[in-house]
Amino acid sequence: MTKHSTFDPADPQYQERVRSSFARQGAMATLQAQLSNVHPGGVDISFDHAGALTQQHGFIHAGVLATAMDSACGYAGFSLMAVGDAVLTIEFKINLLAPARGERFRTEGRVVKPGRTVTVCEGRAYALSGGDEKLIATMSCTLMCVKGRADVAG
Amino acid sequence: MTKHSTFDPADPQYQERVRSSFARQGAMATLQAQLSNVHPGGVDISFDHAGALTQQHGFIHAGVLATAMDSACGYAGFSLMAVGDAVLTIEFKINLLAPARGERFRTEGRVVKPGRTVTVCEGRAYALSGGDEKLIATMSCTLMCVKGRADVAG
Amino acid sequence: MTKHSTFDPADPQYQERVRSSFARQGAMATLQAQLSNVHPGGVDISFDHAGALTQQHGFIHAGVLATAMDSACGYAGFSLMAVGDAVLTIEFKINLLAPARGERFRTEGRVVKPGRTVTVCEGRAYALSGGDEKLIATMSCTLMCVKGRADVAG
Amino acid sequence: MTKHSTFDPADPQYQERVRSSFARQGAMATLQAQLSNVHPGGVDISFDHAGALTQQHGFIHAGVLATAMDSACGYAGFSLMAVGDAVLTIEFKINLLAPARGERFRTEGRVVKPGRTVTVCEGRAYALSGGDEKLIATMSCTLMCVKGRADVAG
Repeated sequence: MTKHSTFDPADPQYQERVRSSFARQGAMATLQAQLSNVHPGGVDISFDHAGALTQQHGFIHAGVLATAMDSACGYAGFSLMAVGDAVLTIEFKINLLAPARGERFRTEGRVVKPGRTVTVCEGRAYALSGGDEKLIATMSCTLMCVKGRADVAG
Repeated sequence: MTKHSTFDPADPQYQERVRSSFARQGAMATLQAQLSNVHPGGVDISFDHAGALTQQHGFIHAGVLATAMDSACGYAGFSLMAVGDAVLTIEFKINLLAPARGERFRTEGRVVKPGRTVTVCEGRAYALSGGDEKLIATMSCTLMCVKGRADVAG
Repeated sequence: MTKHSTFDPADPQYQERVRSSFARQGAMATLQAQLSNVHPGGVDISFDHAGALTQQHGFIHAGVLATAMDSACGYAGFSLMAVGDAVLTIEFKINLLAPARGERFRTEGRVVKPGRTVTVCEGRAYALSGGDEKLIATMSCTLMCVKGRADVAG
Repeated sequence: MTKHSTFDPADPQYQERVRSSFARQGAMATLQAQLSNVHPGGVDISFDHAGALTQQHGFIHAGVLATAMDSACGYAGFSLMAVGDAVLTIEFKINLLAPARGERFRTEGRVVKPGRTVTVCEGRAYALSGGDEKLIATMSCTLMCVKGRADVAG
């Protein structure tokens, strides 16, 4: 597994804040995804293969992988933000290294460079089959920290 | 609306091929998405706002937009491919220009440069509210044309 | 040529501000590049083929194209900024559509979405040979507007 | 330093092949860049600060960093290719984490996933000042392996 970076969270309750925001994402419920790891600057999101998430060949859709990886990166960044801050994705890029074939998928989001306004993260996605774990996608992701807006909180 | 590029499809039955492949994408059913436009080198995919597709602030999740845009780009490329070819995404990048707030969303995929092995597309996503249409995301996407593999066809 | 977007510049002296900043870029002198077009939200930068700018096959290096396109995008964004603001690139992505073979190269930067803090641009690069002009690369680029910092002005 | 991946080169003379191709890049001479490390699937390129490589604030131009990182990634991929193969960049994306201020710059290219046709790499750039080394940029890069074309060899 990718090592966690060592960051000091601004908010000691960061775990709760991440979990509560994650629980409000309808898209994560649709993926039946779990927050499998929450550290300062590092978040993992996992989900099982399901026919509802596939592309035409029966692999997990690249956009579904991207959805989990974007949330993993977003919450990795969010874990370092202050109480009241909100996180929005500015952009991300994903490289698909192999077809997303497997029983289960684990995605990692890691903060590379936190910032007052802009935070940069990297993501990885792994396919799990039997006891094997295979790297299938990489992401780079830029986040914006939004302060003091009523319509985007958390 | 973004103009269609003018390409000659290799397969006159390209529409049918695109629609049949689209119908096999479980992820498109989950988005309740429709193929709203299929031209040679240009495909639109539309879907309505739904709570099952949201991030924590109630906007459409960036990954869900990316899912529709990736399919729109993929099928734009696929529309120009030969019978028996399959399409896989190598990579894509998405820029989020504004929160994905709206009643309905239309995504466009357009081929910029078709190629024997590698095809490059661009995507746009628009939010529709009342009579308004607003550009909310842009994508660039690289596709691979896969020939003669039994496990990835269509 | 790609049409210019219609934006109102915050600073009526935007042309002068762009030209003065461009003149301070050592990298643009090394490319022997010219500002061939400066409009609100749209800037073109052109340069001739030179052996000093090539990769191993004699084509213009992808990074050199990116250098000109990043400056074109950066100055497109900068043209809409206020007096005293500075522009920094957050990220860019370039797709190479064809080898950069030609006598001269024209790059375009266009603002897609201006913002108070973050501006998104798109770029194009064209190779000119004889009377022909061929699209050889596309870029998407995210810029940060920096205010009130002594070490980054203009 | 980022660890090297462990790949078996197809060509035992990979070092010579990389060095000879590097020597033909006019752009690398313009950067006065050195190949500071050549391993199977991992290449470093370093260069000193120079006024000829700057943007308007005196930092190294993002495009110049991208030029070195693209060559580092390209040669990382090329080191694993067979005799007679050529490498072309399909696309890359760069995130700028901090202004490129420093005496010297070291860029790393590492193969993440080699492939028969498409290879994916990641890059890092570091600024060196005094005894310090600071991560200033990350890249993801997709390469194409070109076989049997007279105009693009090496």
